[in-house]
Amino acid sequence: MTSTPGAAASTALLTDHYELTMLQAALASGAAHRRSFFELFPRRLPAGRRYGVVAGVGRALDALESFRFGEAELAFLREERIVDEPTLAWLADYRFHGNVWGYPEGEIYFPYSPLMVVESTFAEAVVLETVLLSIYNHDSAIASAASRMTWAAGERPCIEMGARRTHEGAAVASARAAYVAGFTATSNLRARQKYGVPSTGTSAHSFTLLHDSETDAFRAQVASLGRGTTLLVDTYDIAEAVRLGVEVAGSELGAVRIDSGDLGVLAHEVRHQLDDLGAHDTRIIVTSDLDEFAIAGLASAPVDGYGVGTQLVVGSGHPTCGFVFKLVAREDDRGTLVGVAKKSTDKISIGGRKYALRRLSPQGVAEAEVVGIGSPAVNDGDDRPLLTPLVRDGEVVGREPLKAARARHLRSRDELPQVARQLSKGDPVIETVHER
Amino acid sequence: MTSTPGAAASTALLTDHYELTMLQAALASGAAHRRSFFELFPRRLPAGRRYGVVAGVGRALDALESFRFGEAELAFLREERIVDEPTLAWLADYRFHGNVWGYPEGEIYFPYSPLMVVESTFAEAVVLETVLLSIYNHDSAIASAASRMTWAAGERPCIEMGARRTHEGAAVASARAAYVAGFTATSNLRARQKYGVPSTGTSAHSFTLLHDSETDAFRAQVASLGRGTTLLVDTYDIAEAVRLGVEVAGSELGAVRIDSGDLGVLAHEVRHQLDDLGAHDTRIIVTSDLDEFAIAGLASAPVDGYGVGTQLVVGSGHPTCGFVFKLVAREDDRGTLVGVAKKSTDKISIGGRKYALRRLSPQGVAEAEVVGIGSPAVNDGDDRPLLTPLVRDGEVVGREPLKAARARHLRSRDELPQVARQLSKGDPVIETVHER
Repeated sequence: MTSTPGAAASTALLTDHYELTMLQAALASGAAHRRSFFELFPRRLPAGRRYGVVAGVGRALDALESFRFGEAELAFLREERIVDEPTLAWLADYRFHGNVWGYPEGEIYFPYSPLMVVESTFAEAVVLETVLLSIYNHDSAIASAASRMTWAAGERPCIEMGARRTHEGAAVASARAAYVAGFTATSNLRARQKYGVPSTGTSAHSFTLLHDSETDAFRAQVASLGRGTTLLVDTYDIAEAVRLGVEVAGSELGAVRIDSGDLGVLAHEVRHQLDDLGAHDTRIIVTSDLDEFAIAGLASAPVDGYGVGTQLVVGSGHPTCGFVFKLVAREDDRGTLVGVAKKSTDKISIGGRKYALRRLSPQGVAEAEVVGIGSPAVNDGDDRPLLTPLVRDGEVVGREPLKAARARHLRSRDELPQVARQLSKGDPVIETVHER
Repeated sequence: MTSTPGAAASTALLTDHYELTMLQAALASGAAHRRSFFELFPRRLPAGRRYGVVAGVGRALDALESFRFGEAELAFLREERIVDEPTLAWLADYRFHGNVWGYPEGEIYFPYSPLMVVESTFAEAVVLETVLLSIYNHDSAIASAASRMTWAAGERPCIEMGARRTHEGAAVASARAAYVAGFTATSNLRARQKYGVPSTGTSAHSFTLLHDSETDAFRAQVASLGRGTTLLVDTYDIAEAVRLGVEVAGSELGAVRIDSGDLGVLAHEVRHQLDDLGAHDTRIIVTSDLDEFAIAGLASAPVDGYGVGTQLVVGSGHPTCGFVFKLVAREDDRGTLVGVAKKSTDKISIGGRKYALRRLSPQGVAEAEVVGIGSPAVNDGDDRPLLTPLVRDGEVVGREPLKAARARHLRSRDELPQVARQLSKGDPVIETVHER
């Protein structure tokens, strides 16, 4: 994803050591070739969240296609004696031949939603555990936070600016996930190059400080970037900077950005000043430590756009989703599929291959997440199937443009009961119903 | 860093859009070539933390060396009309020619510690802002959490297992940062390949569930991985699994792993059982949702090692550090260096090039973080200079083996007042003193 030199194209070592050692033991015992179903799912939503958003599907499909052990990976595993020669030989030919179904990107999820179902031999699926979980856990955490922000922002655009506050590769994935959940743009150039997320940006405080005066700085910026640019107005005195900005750029000044202080109060003051100066179309962008609560708090302020940084890339308090990847069924020696689950007092796993439906009222409002084993009972027409084919016989079939995921997210979110939009802590807005 | 196909070796687009637009405007105004000092620093520690740990230095130096605009990057910027042709021409020749000083990796930090000081033209430094902050903010957050965990664990090893709960590239960097802060190993194979962090792992619940019985699974694992392996004993019944494990592997069984339940109670029970079975050297590893508080709570339990996942990779509640990268001084037209700072009511910046010392008592205990502008006053012998050369005239000079950072971290942590080890919320253990 990111780009430190020497990076291999392979995703095969984004893997936990134990996956390869248990592969070795299972190859030796012969059990490795048993047909198996693995499921990627959440046991719960983050505390207080009313819904979650699936993201990372497209990235996971890319990672699955690139999961190959080339010379560099094999030499490393051999030199470090991670696994034995028969296992290395098997890995050298590794290719996923199985089937994957999943919730499509941008879809809403709830506790126990079977977000991904993988059918293959045990060996072919088990090695994918870490990289699939990494991608889903990260990207869905970001999208889940982003969705609350864009819902709070209403028609006003949200711009992702958090790259500097997270790992440089996570930053690119965060921009992508935020876009899926309704953000309109990112500050991150790599996200634009790699995923086509629109990018935006003009200048920082350092640009103003570099010049001998704010006048010099604004003149330089407008001369180079045009009158439609966004001037950062809080380096010295905001009122003076706004006056100066309109003096330099005229009423065609695109926008001013406020990055500190009481944003609600300042937005009102700046809007009055801009209007007094005749700059009625000059927009006001605010960008200081925003999260979904701050965005909601600014709903009545004359703000035209929100730049969101830290709280987006840390998932607004929930930086990971806690998805797990569990073996739920596998063949026995007679070829019969057997549901399996860990016995545990504090963790619930339900064995078997799943289906999943969103139960909708006649008015199209979500009423329940219906999860069952095997095939669904008769569909009364108001249940929307949630699992779609992602990989068929090893070939990726579930790729789609990012805009399709964006559109899906809005549709699925609009189906939720009104209470889903409340930012206060609450239970999942619909229950997960386990059908047997 | 990670390895999705099509990844470029260049780090140049791990950059915010606005850095290139302000570069364009500054190139046009001529101010881009003013000699400048930028500083990377924290305004505070995360709430309640008593110290922080610097990590990511080595990765930042790698990123700086790879910050080059090749054909792919330039074509993208041109096609998307991000910047104009003169700026593209300047970027095509981009190479950092300046000097960088910084806190070496593993060092402790406090509010306003000048973690990195960059001297170059404005243009050469400003474009590095995002990628440097991404690396420092992420890696230092992980190392700061990891240090509390390893301190709580005392002599017992901590193993990093969080890859699945964070972005796949962040996972590799997290393993590295945790190692800097005293972890002994990681589950992540890429971290071993790329950075030489020792890796470890044996099997998951799915391995036991794959087989027709726990007996079959344990026999398969011991046959393939040897008697010294670690058996996971909580898939069904722990006491039965421990009995079975010793039956299969004998008293040479390397370790058992417990991944659920009341770990303190279970560790005592399992230790008694192992001792009764004569397996006195079989170790007990615990791995369920641990953080520094849970580790400390298990101090009196017969535990031989801690596997830490989620809470390590999310920084145990503080997934980012909030470091900023600010222009603190730059030349004027006469070539005089001028300290600069944003005027702001809620953020303090102090202009000028910094020095930094850790003031030590005659007994070698840290007493203050001394930060000043220019050159330090006379050093009385008990002040330890903190800034070391990282880059000189564009050449990286600060690279070191990861083990040097590990050793430094332990030394610097041992200098702190005893109260630093307390996990409860508190103020920074030493004050930052600004000398003028």
